[in-house]
Parts: sequence; structure tokens; C-alpha cells
Amino acid sequence: MKTQQQAKSFADDLDGGVFWRYVEEQARIGALTPRGIRRLALDAHDNEARLWLAARGRELDCGVVYDDLANVFLRREGSDPSLPPLLIGSHMDSQPCAGAYDGALGVMAGLAILQGLQAAGVEHRRAVEVVAWTNEEGARFAPGASGSSWYAGERTYQDIVQTRDDAGTSFGEALAQTLALLRQDGLAYRPAPVRPHAYLELHIEQGPILERQGVPVGIVDGIQGVYWYEVTVHGKANHAGTTPRSARADAFDGAHALVSAMKETVYAHDERVRFTIGKFALKPGSVNTIPSEARFTIDLRHPDEAVLHAIDSGFQALAAELWSNCRVELVRTSAVAPVRFTPELVDCLSRSARAYCEAAPVMVSGAFHDAIHLIRFCPTAMLFTTCRDGLSHHPDEVVERADAEVALRAFAMAAYQLIAE
Amino acid sequence: MKTQQQAKSFADDLDGGVFWRYVEEQARIGALTPRGIRRLALDAHDNEARLWLAARGRELDCGVVYDDLANVFLRREGSDPSLPPLLIGSHMDSQPCAGAYDGALGVMAGLAILQGLQAAGVEHRRAVEVVAWTNEEGARFAPGASGSSWYAGERTYQDIVQTRDDAGTSFGEALAQTLALLRQDGLAYRPAPVRPHAYLELHIEQGPILERQGVPVGIVDGIQGVYWYEVTVHGKANHAGTTPRSARADAFDGAHALVSAMKETVYAHDERVRFTIGKFALKPGSVNTIPSEARFTIDLRHPDEAVLHAIDSGFQALAAELWSNCRVELVRTSAVAPVRFTPELVDCLSRSARAYCEAAPVMVSGAFHDAIHLIRFCPTAMLFTTCRDGLSHHPDEVVERADAEVALRAFAMAAYQLIAE
Repeated sequence: MKTQQQAKSFADDLDGGVFWRYVEEQARIGALTPRGIRRLALDAHDNEARLWLAARGRELDCGVVYDDLANVFLRREGSDPSLPPLLIGSHMDSQPCAGAYDGALGVMAGLAILQGLQAAGVEHRRAVEVVAWTNEEGARFAPGASGSSWYAGERTYQDIVQTRDDAGTSFGEALAQTLALLRQDGLAYRPAPVRPHAYLELHIEQGPILERQGVPVGIVDGIQGVYWYEVTVHGKANHAGTTPRSARADAFDGAHALVSAMKETVYAHDERVRFTIGKFALKPGSVNTIPSEARFTIDLRHPDEAVLHAIDSGFQALAAELWSNCRVELVRTSAVAPVRFTPELVDCLSRSARAYCEAAPVMVSGAFHDAIHLIRFCPTAMLFTTCRDGLSHHPDEVVERADAEVALRAFAMAAYQLIAE
Repeated sequence: MKTQQQAKSFADDLDGGVFWRYVEEQARIGALTPRGIRRLALDAHDNEARLWLAARGRELDCGVVYDDLANVFLRREGSDPSLPPLLIGSHMDSQPCAGAYDGALGVMAGLAILQGLQAAGVEHRRAVEVVAWTNEEGARFAPGASGSSWYAGERTYQDIVQTRDDAGTSFGEALAQTLALLRQDGLAYRPAPVRPHAYLELHIEQGPILERQGVPVGIVDGIQGVYWYEVTVHGKANHAGTTPRSARADAFDGAHALVSAMKETVYAHDERVRFTIGKFALKPGSVNTIPSEARFTIDLRHPDEAVLHAIDSGFQALAAELWSNCRVELVRTSAVAPVRFTPELVDCLSRSARAYCEAAPVMVSGAFHDAIHLIRFCPTAMLFTTCRDGLSHHPDEVVERADAEVALRAFAMAAYQLIAE
């Protein structure tokens, strides 16, 4: 109880002005005109962001280290260096034409906590480290979350370094340049990942739920699972004018009827389900020719794997039928199981959030984050802050400073408890 | 009654072997391996087909003339040259990878009639002309039916000659070469179109209706009208994982619901309606992004203009609503009214057909033909012959010789009556 009061008092005293200055400063690195940023993983601006972060760490008397993936860590030592550290972080790379908050806000929150600990001269038993993970976005090198997935032992170094960007540059080549820069800047090299006591990540929601509820923060207790499908409907091309409906195998018609049935299957489940058809194409693609083929993708999400399984079975059964005389081919191209975060950490974040706002809903993340890998390595949870219109991956991404400060204090109160205990 | 008996006897005596030899010979001009033909309008093979036809005309003592559009006419004079001629014809150009019957079968039927008249030494009051129209297909120069639409006064020479093919060659440039060839070959130039007494066209059905009824021929009493639309559904791009259904403006979802409603509107009418969506595209076209825009085309056909009007009004009303929070833009890009052929000619063809087969359904053409323009210039009707699987515009297009002969004799019997009277 005493720790909790100290934690609240620490979080109350954090300097919101310093925090927001960090946010604004990093937003100038790779800034676009008139607004937004572009920091593709391992490019010049992304590297500049690493060096900027390292400089801030040194100002705060932190140890500054990097690893084989060019993840950068700022470490504030605890009074018992043998204890595994609390790890706080997110990423500083961005989509090609992005806002200044996705990822960066979480790293700046970590930095503001280090600044607060330093300014108040807080002694804490457990070390705290703030990390900026390499290539979360996957916009230049796909897939993303390279730094965190490697750190958590989910993907190998070899797999990651051989991926290439559109210009043909390999991840390994770009990485070598970044590592040379970090060495030159005096960062210490730490070869092996350290298993943290816990991992906490603050991130913008990138969705509209918190804004609609009128609350500044939400506590994330998991990330929904995602199944991807590619569906091909095989019909027969024919003349649009001469072929009566009964003699057609119209691939568009088949796809239309199949999608109607799929929607029934999907929306028979609760409102947490997400069903998106993002690509759809017809062959031969002529105004007056009945399509011989329709091909479309499905992005299906739900926090409960049993629901995903049930819908998957439903889809398989539907695909076995004929639709408008057309045969269907259904391929599941990807399946990522839902994850559940650590209940104790979720509770800790919830209690801290309630110290700063009336309601902080516990919610599932619709998007992926570095935390999806960390949960397989150590206790993990996340805190979301509201963003305007749910807009992200866009220069018009906006986080209100007041909301961000509430998120920072709630987050810091939880972090303090984890390092003080 | 006497004329009818003579007409029947003339048609009975036609040499089916000669007719089929004509069909096979022309199919060697621009033949593809292993089967099919390619005779794009005004290309070398299309020109070769003209010269081949002219040579056949001379063998039969016909006058051979051409006009400004390189339409070729074989004229067998009547005993009263002041009477306007009966015109019989179709086209000899083809789609890029086509069968040997679409168009050519109608010209060969005319040729076989000229051969029959010549062989039997028939004297007839009215002249008969067999025409091969230039560029019916519109595959090289769009739109098609150039020769017939110019002849009927529906389109101007200037409009037609300025269209260009994909290689940048203008219709006018290609036409000049063809005209030079025809001049060189000794064809006579006839500047002004002659208004015919009537126009008859034999063509393959290019649809499955006759085959399904098990009959060799059908009588065409009109061509259905066609409305084309381009529909754009405006939604809002967003993250597929984070955006709940209620917060979406999913352009695919909007298009899907709109199409369902359009289908209800369309299929509330009789089974003669044709509704085809041949193009469909989404923006931005990413698996995990809610589409901001869906764009698709509609090809709508019906023989009754009142039905097309009613469906059009229905579409306009639907487009004024919101669909899954998305706004709709509906543009009618083309409207071709249905045409009705001349009842007396339809009856004449029907009576002749019944002399050769038990049933010859009277039907509406789903596809366009040169006759769609001739009906605005002179009395017009068509006769269809069955083709396998309704397949056309494809090397596998097949017409059975026995069906084609029934069609020829029925057609010739009608033609004979029109020139003898």
C-alpha cells in the first residue's frame, strides 16, 4: 500500500512539459511537410532517431546499449543489479507517410519515466530499461516486429537479415550500417537478450473505441488472432448479352452469394469479430463478359481462438458448395493465434489507470504490436491512449496532449511499483 | 403460293457441299494453329478475305463493287434493275482469337444463294446483293459495325476514320491501304449507299438458347437494349483489426449490400433480363485495410425499353441511399435502345424455317449485329443458327454442318421470295 502511494506520488510529480518536449523533438526527425513523419526501418532518419534517443539516455546517466538487431536500450540501474529488469518500450520506425505517435509515444513515455526517476533521485531495487525496437512496422522490410521477435526468440537472426526492401537492399546490409553508427556513437554492445521481469508497452489505440467511450486510456489484456484467406471462385466466361441467367457460371455472382453466406457465418458471433475483404478482382475484367474468375482476400479477427476455429469450419463448409454454378477454392494463407497478456500486469495497469481517470476499459488490441512477441518471453501487458478518429498510419494521426499525460502517469505509476517492489 | 413453292424448290436444290466448301475455304484465311482464325478489321488477312470474296463473285458473274468504307458487295442483277435490291450479308472480320463462323457464316450463306441462282439459271425481278461489312467486331478499332453504321447513315465517315488501334494506326490509314488493294483488284467503286428493299442477315446465335431447345435455327425479331453503368462506392480506409463494424465505412461492404439490392430490382422483372458485373476493383487494395473505394461496372440488357427504364429508376433510387455508411455515385455510361425488326420479314423467315424444321423459335438477340443499324435504313430481320455451348469469340466456336444447312435453306427460301415477287 505504501509502494502504491509512493508510485502515485512519483507519477503525479512527472514533468508533463518534459514529456511533451520529447514527443515534439522526436517528431522533427524525418518530418514531412506540412505534417507527419517518415522513418522507414534502418533508414537515415530511423538511425538519427536512435542516436537522438541515446543522447537523451546519456543526459539521464543511463547506460546505453545496443544488440545484434540494433534495438537500443537505455538502462537505469537498480539497487540490486542481480534482479531482472523491468522493460518498457515500443518502436521509433514508421510507415512511409505516418503520424508522430505510433510507436514513438511509448518510447517517449519510457524516457519521461527515466527523467522523472533521475530528477527525483529515486532509488529502486530493480533496474528499468527503455527500449526502441527495430522495424516494428514492416513497411520497408516485411514482416515487421523484427527486433522484438528476435529478442523474444520467436524468429532467427538469419531469417530476418535476408529479407530485402523494394530497392533490393537486404535487411542485413542496412543493419550493418546502423550497427556501425551505434558503435561509432559509443553505445555499448550487449550480445544476448536479457529476460525481463516484465514488459510494459504504451501505444496509441489506432482505433476508435476509446474515443467513442470518451476515455483517455484503455488497458490491453490481449491481441486478437488473425486468419487470412485467399478465395478463388471459378466460373466460365461468356457473352453478357446472349447468356441467360440459368446458363451462367458467373464468378462475380458466385463470389457475391458466397460472401453473403460468409457474412452470416461471421456475424452469428459476437460483435468483437472483424471481417474485411480488402482485395477483390475479376477476370477477364471486361464490361460485357461474364467473369470466369473472382479472387478476393479475407482478414478475419477475434480475440477468442475457439470463435476463429468455428468460423474457419463454417468457411470450409461453404467453400465445398457450388455458388452460382461456380467452384470455390479457399486457402488460409496465415493464422496468428490470439494472445492473452499477464493478468497481474493487466490488473496493475488497471488500478493505476483508475487513479487518473474514472473509467479505463479493459480491451483487446485489434492491431499487432511488439508485445505480441514479448508475451512469449516474459510477463507482458499494454496500455492504450486515445487517438482522434481512430486514425493512424497517416500524417493526420492526432493524440491530445492531455490524454497522453493521463496515459503517461497511469503507466508510470504501474512501472514504479514493478521496480520498487 | 406459287412463289413459295418455287422458293422451297430453289432452297431444296441448293448445293450443301458448295456452301460448306465456301465455309471451309474462308476459314483458311488467317487460320490459327491448331484451330480458330484471326482477321482483325483491315489487316492483311481481312483484306485477303475481301479479295477471296470478290473472286468468288466474279466466278458467279456478279458485279463486284466497294464503297468508301471498303464494304464489298457482290451484285446479281434482277430483270428490273430499277427495283431496290435485296441485301444479304454479315461480316468477315473477327475477334483476335476467334472461331470461323461468327459473321463469315452469313456471308457464305449469301454466296451459296448466289451460286444456287447462277447454277439454276434463275431469273428474278429484283437484284440481290451480298455484302461483307467492314469492322463489325470493333476488336481493332472501337466501336465496331463501322461499315454498316456508315452505310445506314448512323455514323459519319469523319468519326470513323479518326479512331486508332493500339499500335496508333488510324482507321483512315488502314482503310486507304485496303481501298488501294480493292481498286488494284479491279472492283468497281460505288460512292453512295443504295437503300435496299430489305436486309437479311444469317448469323450464329453466340448463345445457348437454341441448343438447349434442340433446334437448328431461330428467327430474330429484335436486339435487346443495353445500358452500361459505372458505380463508385465511397467509404473510408481504416485498420482492419482495430475498427469495429459499427465504426466502419467499408466500401466493399457498401458495394456488396448495394449489389444485393440491385439484384432484387433486376430479377423482379422477367427472365429475359441480363445483369452482369464484369469489372470490380477496390482501393487501396490491401488485405488488412478497410477499402476506401469500390468501383464496378454493370451491363444491363432487356428487349423492352420500359423495363430498362424501370430498372434504371430503381438503380437511381438505390444510389441515393447510404450503403454501410458509404456514399454511391452511379453514372450511366451508355444507353442503346432495343430495336424491333420488321414483322413481315420475321414472318417470312419464320414460315421458311418451318418448311425445314419442326420448331424455329422467335427470339431476341442478346448480342449486337450489323442489322442493328440496317433496321434504321430499311426493313430488316435476322436468322440465327445454333452453335455449340453458346460459345463464340473463341477458337472452339463450333457450328454443325447439318444445322448450318437447315439455316441456309430456310434463309434462301425467304430470300428467293423477296427477289422473285
